[in-house]
Amino acid sequence: MSVFADLHRPGDPLVLPNAWDHASAAALAEAGFPAVGTTSLGVAAALGLPDQSGDERSARGSGAAATAEATIDLAHRLTHLPVPVSMDIANGFSTDPAEVAAYVDRLGAVAGVNLEDQLADPASFAQVLVAVTGRGVFINARVDTYWLGDGGVDATLERAKAYVAAGADGIFAPGVKDETEIARLAEALPVPLNVLFLPNTLSVPRLAELGVARISTGSLLYRVALGAAVNAATAVRDGARDFEAPSYAAVDGLAGT
Amino acid sequence: MSVFADLHRPGDPLVLPNAWDHASAAALAEAGFPAVGTTSLGVAAALGLPDQSGDERSARGSGAAATAEATIDLAHRLTHLPVPVSMDIANGFSTDPAEVAAYVDRLGAVAGVNLEDQLADPASFAQVLVAVTGRGVFINARVDTYWLGDGGVDATLERAKAYVAAGADGIFAPGVKDETEIARLAEALPVPLNVLFLPNTLSVPRLAELGVARISTGSLLYRVALGAAVNAATAVRDGARDFEAPSYAAVDGLAGT
Repeated sequence: MSVFADLHRPGDPLVLPNAWDHASAAALAEAGFPAVGTTSLGVAAALGLPDQSGDERSARGSGAAATAEATIDLAHRLTHLPVPVSMDIANGFSTDPAEVAAYVDRLGAVAGVNLEDQLADPASFAQVLVAVTGRGVFINARVDTYWLGDGGVDATLERAKAYVAAGADGIFAPGVKDETEIARLAEALPVPLNVLFLPNTLSVPRLAELGVARISTGSLLYRVALGAAVNAATAVRDGARDFEAPSYAAVDGLAGT
Repeated sequence: MSVFADLHRPGDPLVLPNAWDHASAAALAEAGFPAVGTTSLGVAAALGLPDQSGDERSARGSGAAATAEATIDLAHRLTHLPVPVSMDIANGFSTDPAEVAAYVDRLGAVAGVNLEDQLADPASFAQVLVAVTGRGVFINARVDTYWLGDGGVDATLERAKAYVAAGADGIFAPGVKDETEIARLAEALPVPLNVLFLPNTLSVPRLAELGVARISTGSLLYRVALGAAVNAATAVRDGARDFEAPSYAAVDGLAGT
């Protein structure tokens, strides 16, 4: 089992912070996080491109292709970090198993990938997972029943079990926030359960008690970062004088303004 | 005079917040800033590349070239915003006037550029400025006497006047923080004076009183953003439950996590 896989412990979950660029990932590693993920929404927003969700793909093909390439570039930069990196690659930017497998190969030495089913036909998505296995990469299969659909433990487990049979190393069910449902999912799954941290709902200690093995921050950190930047700019404009300007090796190893 | 040039008012300065990517620029425009700048340090750090400062260029040529291309990409994304955009282009990524002029042409419909002398020979840098003029782009010439050298009003004015004669529309003197020196620079220059906001020194209202016409935030916003992201991630890990996750059109016009 890889170092990254071993960090997924039910009851003592991996908190995986999602970075959007090199410096944010490096700063999170510097702050002591044992692994770093990415946010496809943050990567897309940083570039002013659409995020890769199923329905928008055909209409916005060139934007999706650009996001796919930006994600490859980011992966290559992040694999130099001293911690394992898991890349958020949406649905693999294709529904074709061989294309997704070729895409994962292009990511280089990543520890894991997060692949979204986007409520596609489960048998088809399972074929994508089959194609991606065997690379030593932790495959986190995202079941979008809660995120894009009506939720439900049974519907989620039905998909999840097909994905585990196809080789998924973990299951991500973003959007679930009912304690009983989380506990049932964690109990029923033979692989680590990953949930999304949702502000103002369940804390990490409570999610740990429910048996969760991995907790992602999704786009929260990028949103918080943008908010802090806008608030600081506004405060400067409005006359504030005192600010803390944190220093990070990923920024201050450079020179300039 | 362009809309952007007209925002430079001694005593009623333009506060120009420096963005590092598309969403940060869009969020700052959405927050009401009448113009947006960029930070070459933030752009470089986001990519894990060296910032373009004079001494490092030859040793890190490929990194500088990558930063130059990333800056072009960012310019093309930002010119779709509803506010004027000024790009921080370091020293133009070359000391050759024709190369810098060609580079500025590639930026597209930007309202302004910030060009650093990096304490190069003033006559040579003036030739770069001459080559860049005549494009309707506000040329902010950065005099690095304070930032990279020992400072001094006379040394700064000597360079600044050569640059104004060569066609600079504004002078940027980052690093100056002495009230008397700022007032002398503002008084002596025939063009708008731009200074860098330095936390814990002089506020915008005080800089306004001293005659400053433009105030840049440099890398402060990017540093604050990284700090906020790291702090939020750490708080999540340590059990905090409640967070404000701000919403921005540049993020929430997309879909995903």
